[in-house]
Amino acid sequence: MTQSSQAKVLGVLGGGQLGRMLIQSAINYNQDIHILDPDPNAPCKDIAQKFTVGSLKDFDTVMAFGQDCDVITVEIENVNTDALQALADQGKKVYPQPHILKLIQDKREQKQFYKENGIPTAEFILTENKSEVLSNADFLPAVNKLGKEGYDGRGVQILRSESDLDQAFDAPGLLEKLIDFDREIAVTVARNENGDMIAYPAVECAFHPTANLVEFLFAPAEITPEIEEQAKEIAKAVILKLDMVGILAVELFVTKSGEVLVNEIAPRPHNSGHHTIEANYTSQFEQHLRSVMNWPLGDPDLRCPAAMVNLLGEEGFTGPVIIEGKEEALSEKGVYIHMYGKKLTKPFRKMGHVTVLDENVDNLKKRAQRIKELIKIKAES
Amino acid sequence: MTQSSQAKVLGVLGGGQLGRMLIQSAINYNQDIHILDPDPNAPCKDIAQKFTVGSLKDFDTVMAFGQDCDVITVEIENVNTDALQALADQGKKVYPQPHILKLIQDKREQKQFYKENGIPTAEFILTENKSEVLSNADFLPAVNKLGKEGYDGRGVQILRSESDLDQAFDAPGLLEKLIDFDREIAVTVARNENGDMIAYPAVECAFHPTANLVEFLFAPAEITPEIEEQAKEIAKAVILKLDMVGILAVELFVTKSGEVLVNEIAPRPHNSGHHTIEANYTSQFEQHLRSVMNWPLGDPDLRCPAAMVNLLGEEGFTGPVIIEGKEEALSEKGVYIHMYGKKLTKPFRKMGHVTVLDENVDNLKKRAQRIKELIKIKAES
Repeated sequence: MTQSSQAKVLGVLGGGQLGRMLIQSAINYNQDIHILDPDPNAPCKDIAQKFTVGSLKDFDTVMAFGQDCDVITVEIENVNTDALQALADQGKKVYPQPHILKLIQDKREQKQFYKENGIPTAEFILTENKSEVLSNADFLPAVNKLGKEGYDGRGVQILRSESDLDQAFDAPGLLEKLIDFDREIAVTVARNENGDMIAYPAVECAFHPTANLVEFLFAPAEITPEIEEQAKEIAKAVILKLDMVGILAVELFVTKSGEVLVNEIAPRPHNSGHHTIEANYTSQFEQHLRSVMNWPLGDPDLRCPAAMVNLLGEEGFTGPVIIEGKEEALSEKGVYIHMYGKKLTKPFRKMGHVTVLDENVDNLKKRAQRIKELIKIKAES
Repeated sequence: MTQSSQAKVLGVLGGGQLGRMLIQSAINYNQDIHILDPDPNAPCKDIAQKFTVGSLKDFDTVMAFGQDCDVITVEIENVNTDALQALADQGKKVYPQPHILKLIQDKREQKQFYKENGIPTAEFILTENKSEVLSNADFLPAVNKLGKEGYDGRGVQILRSESDLDQAFDAPGLLEKLIDFDREIAVTVARNENGDMIAYPAVECAFHPTANLVEFLFAPAEITPEIEEQAKEIAKAVILKLDMVGILAVELFVTKSGEVLVNEIAPRPHNSGHHTIEANYTSQFEQHLRSVMNWPLGDPDLRCPAAMVNLLGEEGFTGPVIIEGKEEALSEKGVYIHMYGKKLTKPFRKMGHVTVLDENVDNLKKRAQRIKELIKIKAES
């Protein structure tokens, strides 16, 4: 690896917290990063070598942005994949590949991909509109998902019984059997152009009861070695079947009968891997960089058990940020605060996260709970 | 700690690798950092919220730079301390305090400070010029140090016998008894405005045989708990006697008879603390930030034994950088490369460093040696 590979420019579509943490990691390698984001105050704006304000969905904007870049990646799926394909056709490296992003943008295609490739996932029915949902009442309890534009819990609802059917989406989507799961876990896998592949240890996710966002994450997951192995094999099968280069977060259900089913996937650094910055030998952000730049992959092992707490904007507060409880949290050993540089908070906005390290797994859970109660993201009144 | 303390701007005199790693750490706290550096291509240029090109030694330049800042610190000692004092008089927080920087700028004053405050250090004689050195031939073997402008091994020479006296500096300086030391160690201490104080575990430094730069560093140091305690107490005594706020690296000799003597000090993040990024609960960069911003200090404990290897420009190469051996190093578990974003290399220029983590201390030494042989910083020919 000589200067010629060093001097490559990595372009990233999206300049949010994922891009921000990617840049923090890329600084160690003199890796220049250009960012495209529609928000002039995006978290990456001050730390990218070049920051361009523009739409990720506009063909010409993405094409123009890509011209200066040698390798192009994303930190969000909802981008113009036609432009990415045209850039790939020009000879640019685009990872994850455009066809994968296209697949991810449509949950219907995603589910069919699992089915066609023998990836275990919850049973489902594709629906074109609300009346098709209504005609499948016998499939309940189920999760009703919009095919497109869902993100961070939007576009997903649980239909437990017929009385919930009124809320069903009236657009192309799907009904998925509601899984009576024991745990929700996630496995991150990475693969580079050379075909090297690694899997991170499984983590356990605890979701916010109403916002459908990860609230806590624990590493390692409290599962048997067999389940862990099964989850890793499934995650590897997904990235291989996709023929994907980059990092892929695979969210899975472990059912009460011990089945492991793919729930959703994200072909980029993901909330379920934030703890890797302090807890693992190689962070997911560095791993993403290594995979898309075709560098050797890094060791994914856990250095220490960890918990991750998302810092979401408190309900009832909108406006310039006030962080409560930070000082007390900072006094604790093994507590790592990551703020995302967002000037304005609103309810459930992801404003930052905290990682807690503790050799004692029981302590970890208590400490994570306490950190969540301690740090509050509010707004000036 | 509310947004009002968050919104403070931290100004840093110097935009080299120390400022760069400070910014990487500050990103986690939404802490805005402004940088002043004479080099338009300084390592911090792309990642500071504001980057100003200008002389650190010019009164008006430093005064103008400081106006936008609430807290001002340094990553190099050789700055205009009159301007910093004037900024402090205006009510700005300046840490380390200007009088400490002034003391550090003159090794003669530094030695007298140790003597007056009962800090153990090697015996010395102040000399005004070369003829005064010559008249002290009976004090040899000794280290001859220039009072001012010494940095990274410049302005320091060893006078073993009378035949070396020809090389003696002809400027105000000092002669220091050459210490027949067993080991060179370093202890970093930090102190905030509230008076909280912590000491890092001692590390062991191995210097390059000719360049007088740290070549390897090992943590923990292989010393007895008694020597470790003594070193920490001395380091704490120094920061207390200085009444200093910030982070202070204290380099010490452990003599063959078990004495611990202060060699030199640096009131800023220092090469002897680079391993703390991966090896300790709180990195020296985050600790510096915490101390100058008067946040609670972080835990300094070691998470894992570590070695640090400086990546110095190879002799015989000057020009645009080529990094050899990086790919192989990246394949190793627990190897962390930090490049400093410098476009041009020259012999012995600090271009980056590598931290190696390994629970096995014997392996660490071998692996550090191998990394040093593997990674070479050369130039395009």
